[in-house]
Amino acid sequence: MSILEISKAAKAASIQMAAVSGKVKNAALAEIADALKQHRFEIIAANEKDLALARQNNISAPLLKRLKFDDGKIADACAGIESLIKLSDPVGKTLTATELAKGLKLYKVSCPIGVIGVIFESRPDALVQISTLCLKSGNAVLLKGGSEAAQINRVLADVIIEAGERAGLPKGWLGLLETRADVAEMLNLDEYIDLVVPRGSNEFVRYIMNNTNIPVLGHADGICHVYVDGAANLDKAVKIAVDSKCQYAAVCNAAETLLVDEKIAAEFLPLVKAALDEQGVELRGCRKTASIIDVKPATEKDWSTEYLDYILSIKVVSGIDEAIEHINKYGSHHTDAIVTKNKAAAEKFMNLVDSADVFSNASTRFSDGYRFGLGAEVGISTNKIHARGPVGLEGLLIYKWKLIGNGHIVADYANGRKKFTHKKLKRGE
Amino acid sequence: MSILEISKAAKAASIQMAAVSGKVKNAALAEIADALKQHRFEIIAANEKDLALARQNNISAPLLKRLKFDDGKIADACAGIESLIKLSDPVGKTLTATELAKGLKLYKVSCPIGVIGVIFESRPDALVQISTLCLKSGNAVLLKGGSEAAQINRVLADVIIEAGERAGLPKGWLGLLETRADVAEMLNLDEYIDLVVPRGSNEFVRYIMNNTNIPVLGHADGICHVYVDGAANLDKAVKIAVDSKCQYAAVCNAAETLLVDEKIAAEFLPLVKAALDEQGVELRGCRKTASIIDVKPATEKDWSTEYLDYILSIKVVSGIDEAIEHINKYGSHHTDAIVTKNKAAAEKFMNLVDSADVFSNASTRFSDGYRFGLGAEVGISTNKIHARGPVGLEGLLIYKWKLIGNGHIVADYANGRKKFTHKKLKRGE
Repeated sequence: MSILEISKAAKAASIQMAAVSGKVKNAALAEIADALKQHRFEIIAANEKDLALARQNNISAPLLKRLKFDDGKIADACAGIESLIKLSDPVGKTLTATELAKGLKLYKVSCPIGVIGVIFESRPDALVQISTLCLKSGNAVLLKGGSEAAQINRVLADVIIEAGERAGLPKGWLGLLETRADVAEMLNLDEYIDLVVPRGSNEFVRYIMNNTNIPVLGHADGICHVYVDGAANLDKAVKIAVDSKCQYAAVCNAAETLLVDEKIAAEFLPLVKAALDEQGVELRGCRKTASIIDVKPATEKDWSTEYLDYILSIKVVSGIDEAIEHINKYGSHHTDAIVTKNKAAAEKFMNLVDSADVFSNASTRFSDGYRFGLGAEVGISTNKIHARGPVGLEGLLIYKWKLIGNGHIVADYANGRKKFTHKKLKRGE
Repeated sequence: MSILEISKAAKAASIQMAAVSGKVKNAALAEIADALKQHRFEIIAANEKDLALARQNNISAPLLKRLKFDDGKIADACAGIESLIKLSDPVGKTLTATELAKGLKLYKVSCPIGVIGVIFESRPDALVQISTLCLKSGNAVLLKGGSEAAQINRVLADVIIEAGERAGLPKGWLGLLETRADVAEMLNLDEYIDLVVPRGSNEFVRYIMNNTNIPVLGHADGICHVYVDGAANLDKAVKIAVDSKCQYAAVCNAAETLLVDEKIAAEFLPLVKAALDEQGVELRGCRKTASIIDVKPATEKDWSTEYLDYILSIKVVSGIDEAIEHINKYGSHHTDAIVTKNKAAAEKFMNLVDSADVFSNASTRFSDGYRFGLGAEVGISTNKIHARGPVGLEGLLIYKWKLIGNGHIVADYANGRKKFTHKKLKRGE
């Protein structure tokens, strides 16, 4: 099938998916978990082909580790599916109910978005997670995984599609894309695809955002900050700075810039330098920083660079106002943290920093769907509309307005014969 | 000021606006209502200049009527502001609260989107409504009204800006755009503008959607349907069809196509034709329709045409499935209604028709922010994300995640020293 045909089929399936009962969706999830276990040899064999090719291509050890999908990973994936089954059906929930007029009731009801296109990295477990999140939320889904995982993705998609259909899902609810050219074609199909979620490198996400009329949910940069306030506990500030930078440096919620209140700079900078030196972090500092500790000079470009590496830029600021201004100017509206004992300062920072995630006295690395308690995540969004920060099941839903009357016409209300009541209804009315 | 400068100022103001208290916002609203009354002579004089020019340009009577802004309209606008003041502050509401781990609490808190650009038609009351909705929701706003209302819009904007600033709103919270070139420039400023809401003609909205990277909330077409089911009460069906088409034919929620179940076509079509003939509606029908009543032949193009006029296309369908398929194929996902006494059919229709508003036994004309009880509306959205159907205050809000810890770092949880609790918190915890 061509990408156009796959997308048309997904659109048609999405209409049916929106009306599939919670019971059938849960049965499909259980069937998928069973099928993953039953097909384990096939799945692992396909993964081994991917791994062999990856080794031939001298792919790095961390990437190889992420690519590996063994019995343990299958068990994890099935556990994830089990936890999805336990959640109540998110579709068909009455969000508000209003009596507009006598006998005329309006319900705002949750429903799936439609067709979601997700482009993700080389972890094969992402395919299972994303497809089952879309299933539970009643969406059809088009998936494009990393090319390193081509063999296993094909097997996983087939297993999931068949198991889903066996349980009663409509044909076409899941489509697999395999090449970059497929993705390029998908980006033109705004008639059939309602939302694109790209995960991957900065350049890749930016390319997606600039080349489609389909709404895009995600983030390009993750330029996250830790601001150490004059009223900070300096031990905690050191721990938070080190964790934010080093706990996993290659990801979007790692800190790239440390802002330090000039009031405590002379005391704090040597402490944090010692701790970061231990981790092998390269420091690039502003002039004031360089007058206190030994650092490479930071240039203007450093403030807007996502290193994704053991590099940290440091700037001494005159106080919280300059910190907030710096973050709103150079940051990527992803995750920013303040370390302070002053509650009013923490509140000010969290209100005025225009980011999806604003933290006080906690590491930026907490910004993640699992840690936030959302279950699996489809991605992290720096959008200003729809969904912000880590996005779980809820971000895959929208609502429709259902109005139930008994022959009601507007003319009766326009000419004053009848009157609106606009009365909030209680659940079940 | 250039559009770039106005937009930069709005972005800077939006940061402050997000933290303005409900008390100050209400004081600003009250100040604006007072100022509108105090400046009534100036406002009405400016409107008279617009009206004089409009008459010179032979603008149609309905447009002239909409352009007129007199003491009654000022009183209406002030009443609208009074009702906004009565609403609780929609910003800063805790939507969910979770204890992630001991001493680590996560709050999902409502906040404004940022800078909203709204392009609206020639009604001067729209300027007051939109600017005060944005104010109440803590957004900065850029406004571009109809060119016919240029004089009054300038006066209204000045009065509202000054009154707002007097009450403590940050400079730059409201910017006025005056020309189409201003709008074109605004569309490039995705760095400063977070959402564009275009109201106006199909072509204009489509132009906006195709020429910006800023998210757009709105609708291009309003191709709405009434489907008369085999189990309909035919008297009610006639009333609903006539109201949906004729109560106000020039607007987006007026019906453009009538779908009729073949089971009742022979009985229903003559009835509805008689009623529509009385209103002077031109009928264009499919072959089956033409075999029952006297109509012009409909072509394929009619099914996807928004007439915005006293014209209605009619198609006889084999039943509810064909009706749903037709609507999902040719409709604009705006508002569609079924007339039926069969509850299961109504439910099926409302679940499977992929539109923002799905009605049973009620006129499509009910799809409107005021009638829905939302207060004023900023527009009607056929988007699949963020906000759908009539959009009031709520569509101008998003949320941010506030995490409050006490030196928490991820390393402790990654290596198992500490455990997540992921416990839902009650209000106020």
